[in-house]
Amino acid sequence: MGNCMDGIRNSCDRQKNTNIKSSLPAVCFVWQLSMIILFGVFVRYNVESDTHWVEHKKKDNITSDIENDFYFRYPSFQDVHVMIFVGFGFLMTFLKRYSFGAVGFNFLVAAFGIQWALLMQGWFHSLDYNDGKIKIGIENLINADFCVAGCLIAYGALLGKVSPVQLLVMTLFGVTLFAVEEYIILNILHAKDAGGSMVIHTFGAYYGLSISWVLYRPDLDKSKHLNGSVYHSDVFAMIGTLFLWMFWPSFNSAIADHGDGQHRAAINTYLALASTVLTTVAMSSLFEKTGKLDMVHIQNSTLAGGVAVGTAAEFMLSPYGSLIVGFFCGIISTLGYIFFSPFLEEKLKIQDTCGIHNLHAMPGVLGGIVGAISAAAATKTVYGDEGLVNTFDFKGSFANRVPTIQGGYQAAGLCVALCFGIGGGILLPIWGDPADENCYDDEIYWEVPEDEESVPPVLAYNNHMIPNKHSNSAGKSRTWQHSSEY
Amino acid sequence: MGNCMDGIRNSCDRQKNTNIKSSLPAVCFVWQLSMIILFGVFVRYNVESDTHWVEHKKKDNITSDIENDFYFRYPSFQDVHVMIFVGFGFLMTFLKRYSFGAVGFNFLVAAFGIQWALLMQGWFHSLDYNDGKIKIGIENLINADFCVAGCLIAYGALLGKVSPVQLLVMTLFGVTLFAVEEYIILNILHAKDAGGSMVIHTFGAYYGLSISWVLYRPDLDKSKHLNGSVYHSDVFAMIGTLFLWMFWPSFNSAIADHGDGQHRAAINTYLALASTVLTTVAMSSLFEKTGKLDMVHIQNSTLAGGVAVGTAAEFMLSPYGSLIVGFFCGIISTLGYIFFSPFLEEKLKIQDTCGIHNLHAMPGVLGGIVGAISAAAATKTVYGDEGLVNTFDFKGSFANRVPTIQGGYQAAGLCVALCFGIGGGILLPIWGDPADENCYDDEIYWEVPEDEESVPPVLAYNNHMIPNKHSNSAGKSRTWQHSSEY
Amino acid sequence: MGNCMDGIRNSCDRQKNTNIKSSLPAVCFVWQLSMIILFGVFVRYNVESDTHWVEHKKKDNITSDIENDFYFRYPSFQDVHVMIFVGFGFLMTFLKRYSFGAVGFNFLVAAFGIQWALLMQGWFHSLDYNDGKIKIGIENLINADFCVAGCLIAYGALLGKVSPVQLLVMTLFGVTLFAVEEYIILNILHAKDAGGSMVIHTFGAYYGLSISWVLYRPDLDKSKHLNGSVYHSDVFAMIGTLFLWMFWPSFNSAIADHGDGQHRAAINTYLALASTVLTTVAMSSLFEKTGKLDMVHIQNSTLAGGVAVGTAAEFMLSPYGSLIVGFFCGIISTLGYIFFSPFLEEKLKIQDTCGIHNLHAMPGVLGGIVGAISAAAATKTVYGDEGLVNTFDFKGSFANRVPTIQGGYQAAGLCVALCFGIGGGILLPIWGDPADENCYDDEIYWEVPEDEESVPPVLAYNNHMIPNKHSNSAGKSRTWQHSSEY
Repeated sequence: MGNCMDGIRNSCDRQKNTNIKSSLPAVCFVWQLSMIILFGVFVRYNVESDTHWVEHKKKDNITSDIENDFYFRYPSFQDVHVMIFVGFGFLMTFLKRYSFGAVGFNFLVAAFGIQWALLMQGWFHSLDYNDGKIKIGIENLINADFCVAGCLIAYGALLGKVSPVQLLVMTLFGVTLFAVEEYIILNILHAKDAGGSMVIHTFGAYYGLSISWVLYRPDLDKSKHLNGSVYHSDVFAMIGTLFLWMFWPSFNSAIADHGDGQHRAAINTYLALASTVLTTVAMSSLFEKTGKLDMVHIQNSTLAGGVAVGTAAEFMLSPYGSLIVGFFCGIISTLGYIFFSPFLEEKLKIQDTCGIHNLHAMPGVLGGIVGAISAAAATKTVYGDEGLVNTFDFKGSFANRVPTIQGGYQAAGLCVALCFGIGGGILLPIWGDPADENCYDDEIYWEVPEDEESVPPVLAYNNHMIPNKHSNSAGKSRTWQHSSEY
Repeated sequence: MGNCMDGIRNSCDRQKNTNIKSSLPAVCFVWQLSMIILFGVFVRYNVESDTHWVEHKKKDNITSDIENDFYFRYPSFQDVHVMIFVGFGFLMTFLKRYSFGAVGFNFLVAAFGIQWALLMQGWFHSLDYNDGKIKIGIENLINADFCVAGCLIAYGALLGKVSPVQLLVMTLFGVTLFAVEEYIILNILHAKDAGGSMVIHTFGAYYGLSISWVLYRPDLDKSKHLNGSVYHSDVFAMIGTLFLWMFWPSFNSAIADHGDGQHRAAINTYLALASTVLTTVAMSSLFEKTGKLDMVHIQNSTLAGGVAVGTAAEFMLSPYGSLIVGFFCGIISTLGYIFFSPFLEEKLKIQDTCGIHNLHAMPGVLGGIVGAISAAAATKTVYGDEGLVNTFDFKGSFANRVPTIQGGYQAAGLCVALCFGIGGGILLPIWGDPADENCYDDEIYWEVPEDEESVPPVLAYNNHMIPNKHSNSAGKSRTWQHSSEY
Repeated sequence: MGNCMDGIRNSCDRQKNTNIKSSLPAVCFVWQLSMIILFGVFVRYNVESDTHWVEHKKKDNITSDIENDFYFRYPSFQDVHVMIFVGFGFLMTFLKRYSFGAVGFNFLVAAFGIQWALLMQGWFHSLDYNDGKIKIGIENLINADFCVAGCLIAYGALLGKVSPVQLLVMTLFGVTLFAVEEYIILNILHAKDAGGSMVIHTFGAYYGLSISWVLYRPDLDKSKHLNGSVYHSDVFAMIGTLFLWMFWPSFNSAIADHGDGQHRAAINTYLALASTVLTTVAMSSLFEKTGKLDMVHIQNSTLAGGVAVGTAAEFMLSPYGSLIVGFFCGIISTLGYIFFSPFLEEKLKIQDTCGIHNLHAMPGVLGGIVGAISAAAATKTVYGDEGLVNTFDFKGSFANRVPTIQGGYQAAGLCVALCFGIGGGILLPIWGDPADENCYDDEIYWEVPEDEESVPPVLAYNNHMIPNKHSNSAGKSRTWQHSSEY
């Protein structure tokens, strides 16, 4: 039935494989052992997390422990951490029978990804050339979480259609590509991207979409009945939405400059997100026959403003500028869900489970453009002499940069993110995805309890049409039994 | 059937209108555009979130970026933000079929309200007379969240009985009234109210209750079957309860004075809330025939201590004083649910869905009284000379205030909050609420997935009494289809 | 049917008593009143939360309010607070019909425990000998939360099998024992235990396990059908898991030394936890016939790394050291669930509902050992002269301690924790537990709504086999009625 599109998209030849008994433990053990070895060789505490900090303080005339970067960034770090594990994890629980996979595989992928990210980003950004060691502190932890966010965005497109082993492979490659792309954009091009509109969202989304294109399933209708929500799964997803929404100001300000930089980034993000909620609700109601709201839009499009204000969050975007960005993002993202997602699936053969094209790809690109324009438009009148230099870091070998040039490099950065995302996804070796009829189903990778609840006792006793299985066994019992099965 | 009570309460004449297709998008778009224009004209960054901060630091001899107010208040701000969006949102998900409306409309109302609050509060409190601009920083964001809390409290009384358009109107008026009331209480009367027992809770609760009185529905029994919880919706509501309970110390300390002020406010709130839990449990068990606990009490009354300690949180209330406040609040609030709510509904014709009279109104008034008494009882022995002046801000034109006088002004502040709440609610123009039989039902404003789960597959196949609808369609499918309906 | 094992284990003689109508309110009221009296006599604000702070600042030449300990610890405190109330509470909601009891009794126990802990720990650690008062600040609140964590761990073993009154008694004794044990370990032995591997986890776990041994129920099979999860209760439990996992770095760093101490503790915990996730997933898949993952492991064993790195978190464990600790904990903990829990139940007659032996006991002991070894192995080369003294607090009467000796005292501390845990649990007077057939059932202590949802309306109307009860009453209605039952 399926049509083999071309050489790259090899869905017909791939053997469907849902048994992960040998591959998953092997991958986890081998990779975790590798992490230990690599950390042993390369990773040490940085000066602010080492016991020698007390000597460092004296040398640098630091009078108080509160000057430790920990106190500038730890609250934001924890907010970002919640976004990665609860935000992304629960946002994907909307599927009626893939909540375990959503929150569980998100957990697995992120826990692996942050370790690999500490290494990859460390080699590029935190290598101490005196001793060849990567020196880590709180900012590295935030960046590792950021890096993983890119891969979790990609997971959104693949949700329900790939195995955990595939996800780990995707994360290994994704983190590697991310670190290279980030180095090119931030260090070589010297573009600014505090909230990662380009580096995280654009890259992550196109990475996921191109993997989804490679893995196209012409017969996905076989599991169509599971590709939807139930009442309570939609409420669970709102936990993810709200924690992402609330903590996004921390996301965009976490690695911004100390002082006014972090302060401004938080304000801009707060405003952009508020604006997005109203236009999302408006569009959702406007394009439905009877004016009813669609949970898909409320869960996702309300977040688009945070994505799009990422690059420019620490710039002098001004409060109304942030509102404008949020205003258009809510519109674009909701329209994307209504019109563009069906088009993507039917015409471009990209099956995007969570609609990351609407939540991350389009707003990410928009954010890159907003960043380029607002950088190019920066003036000394608005920023002040020192403020301009500090905000855009026109120092060292970049001391001669001027805002208009900076705008050009910002745009170049966006292109790099796009290329890495699309190219990386297409070239990724991937295999072992589940059969079409097993998609969106926790049963294949998880021990799933039977839901006794859905059979009220009175029914179970009186209704002889129900097989014994339902009246006897009552969910997965946690009575500890050393059963013969082990 | 319904009796028209009087001119103000016009429930009989109002046309029931559940179609929000034209009104909701229109209101959202027009208001969001107005926000952008007003922000463009009026709102700028304040000195601590502007790139000119670097010059300001030099001028004021500020040696470290950590002195930026952002680092004093951002962690508390994020906790408050969680209370507003997850706390209030999930607390209201207890209804079996109104969880979307609870968490979704809470989201919409708050996202609009914070923008309007930044403007309204800005004009009163943060206007820079040099250039006519409102200068915003982190404290403004906290205050905007606080302001919205008043409206969300009011939503608690109306939950399930009003349309989102009505809620937006209620928020527009509520935020406006709040800003005026707050200005009178805090600036003109110079009352202190760090945690907003008066300004937020008393005002918000009576605002909601008087709107509920205006919107009285004599035939609400038609949707009685939906005005209750199911097992999992009660667990969802506990998410709201706990995040409110845990972060309430941040709520009451968020805008308290730097240093000991914030520190003490957090301690007092922590203790008051702990005490409330025990008396709530005691009362809940005591007044039930078989001693069982009622989730309604645990979800709500456990929070009353945080409300009541709001005004006095930054005073030298002393740890046992906080425990005493919490002790009585748990009792009063639980008794309110048991005895007063039925009385309110039957005799006063006020239908209060979440029982905000017990959670916010009574504890809020109590908090105002506790604040007045503890202010009047303040002495230099306890506070220290400077401490007394700092805590009550007896400076500038209020340099001659003494504690006893301050107590009187605190009491006056409570009266102002009551008047604004009751008066505002009665005079609010409101229209377009859903029909009685549609109350507490997400179906009228949301695309609701059918719950396949509740029909176990084995039933669906074998039991011929189930119509096709249930065996075929399986929840709302997220397969992207550019259907003709758009 | 039950066999009376010995004198201590008196399960046969105990009268089963599920009516808590008189005992629960009595205990709550009497204890809360006692707390008020004791706080009135003993507890005051410390210098940093008192209005005299302004004078103190001048005296000590403190130039900024940001030096107040509040700003060093409040963000971590709030994270710990979330772990105690949402983390522990929701982790235990996995049971299909005990979610109210899990989250509700956790709430009650913790709210009481923190008050008693402030007193008990205060007498040992924060007594001002000048005026005989306990002076509390933010660090006391964190320690109170920590102390309660020990009792909540114990609750994990007893979940579903004890009454709330028993839990309160268990908490009263547990907190008391904790404070004594903590004083011996931290002050007399001068062992370090920032994250409480010994003081909190080892003590709490063995305390709970030995109580569970005393309360052994040979006929627990009677409620076996309720000792298991349903799909959505497993998702609720993941909320608990994730908030514990994400905020564990705050737990282990909350009371560590200012500056590099807190910084390093957070990094070590972050890494240990990441490593644990991978080995947990590996073992869970490896030991299941078809390689499927088990939610029990994912919910619990993923956290073991945080437990085991507790003692050594502020030491120079080095990043790869943390990964190694996490690596083995994931393996040991998962193996515990697979092999050791059945053994505990069948052979040792210990029924451990949540498997705390695998999550807290074994990793806690391991953490104590890791702490002892890494303390003994500490050198001036690694720590620096001052760093070594600061980290292990080799000051005052302990100025002559050397690392090897410190290692010995660390090991002694572990033994003290074990003895107090096991001894305390066995000697605890406990009575009034529910009958075997009522275990794991919210019905006996809570008003539980009937789940209309599980009977689709179409069924309720057409299927005559369903009794009227189900088609008429629809969940617990929240229509306020002053019913005659009160």
